Amino acid sequence: MAAVYCALVHHPVRDRAGQDVTTSVTNLDVHDIARSARTYGLKGYFIVHPVSAQRPIVERIVEHWCAGPGRERIPERTKAIELVRVASSISEVVDEISRREGEVPRLWATSAREPEGLATLRFPVAREELDQARPCLLLFGSGHGLATRVLEGADAVLEPIDGVNGYNHLSVRAAAAIVFDRLFGGAV
Amino acid sequence: MAAVYCALVHHPVRDRAGQDVTTSVTNLDVHDIARSARTYGLKGYFIVHPVSAQRPIVERIVEHWCAGPGRERIPERTKAIELVRVASSISEVVDEISRREGEVPRLWATSAREPEGLATLRFPVAREELDQARPCLLLFGSGHGLATRVLEGADAVLEPIDGVNGYNHLSVRAAAAIVFDRLFGGAV
Repeated sequence: MAAVYCALVHHPVRDRAGQDVTTSVTNLDVHDIARSARTYGLKGYFIVHPVSAQRPIVERIVEHWCAGPGRERIPERTKAIELVRVASSISEVVDEISRREGEVPRLWATSAREPEGLATLRFPVAREELDQARPCLLLFGSGHGLATRVLEGADAVLEPIDGVNGYNHLSVRAAAAIVFDRLFGGAV
Repeated sequence: MAAVYCALVHHPVRDRAGQDVTTSVTNLDVHDIARSARTYGLKGYFIVHPVSAQRPIVERIVEHWCAGPGRERIPERTKAIELVRVASSISEVVDEISRREGEVPRLWATSAREPEGLATLRFPVAREELDQARPCLLLFGSGHGLATRVLEGADAVLEPIDGVNGYNHLSVRAAAAIVFDRLFGGAV
């Protein structure tokens, strides 16, 4: 089974109009996705932010829960937040995973819509491919999703999560939970 | 296919020590679960709170997104928040659904752990049972989950979402998203 990591990318992501922007760190994205990642056995969760002033916000959250008073109060939360690391770019995350695992990870991006001109990887196939030992990094976009160049640069884009009636407006926290369940959850 | 509703219950729920408590409304529980509910075709999402001072907080959120400035800014969000209604108790929700659907809904509770002395409903069976026309209300607990008496009073308790290695510390927002995907999502 592959060592799987995830990253929440704050840049480059799209805004409503499709332009590349940088979004802000939010406390709840750190907590919710860390809790889901820990529940499904991921080995790490990276918060990717290029702005140096934003990164200490995440470091303070990690410090509070891993060394500070949070550790005593809710030990299960510590187990989740321990997975969190900060990075300035996706390539920094790739380097860190390569260092830890001794192998460059596969990059799997996610998108709420079928990306134009790119094939997507269906979940049953993705599950099988995770039997291979090579590590894997799942990329989630904040804002309105990963920039096109991130999708194009990935080894694969996971198929979008279909809602019913064509509506899909899941939060990134909900989307990450569903992706983890589809990739690692018990057989439905 | 059954008309399915969900409710986020703030009382009676358990605290860390297993005592019955009342939790506070949070803005993000309203948004995230509404977005997931709308994506998976649920017919309504009720916020259950017995404290009258807490209920207008939800009403203000609904007003902002359904009639106020939010409607113009992010129309997809309006589509989600339109599902949200406030109620003071689970039985008030049951009455409201009965009135709308002409039939009393089945009550399906959720729990992060196997509830003592109660059988649980497996997801594949639950999916089949939703083919029946009788409406269904999915109950989620805030805090550390629904009080035992709510689980005991339900028609069924859905099987807990298993993580790996016995760790399960999903947020209610993540758990709701996964439950909707397991019940209504495309075949994996």
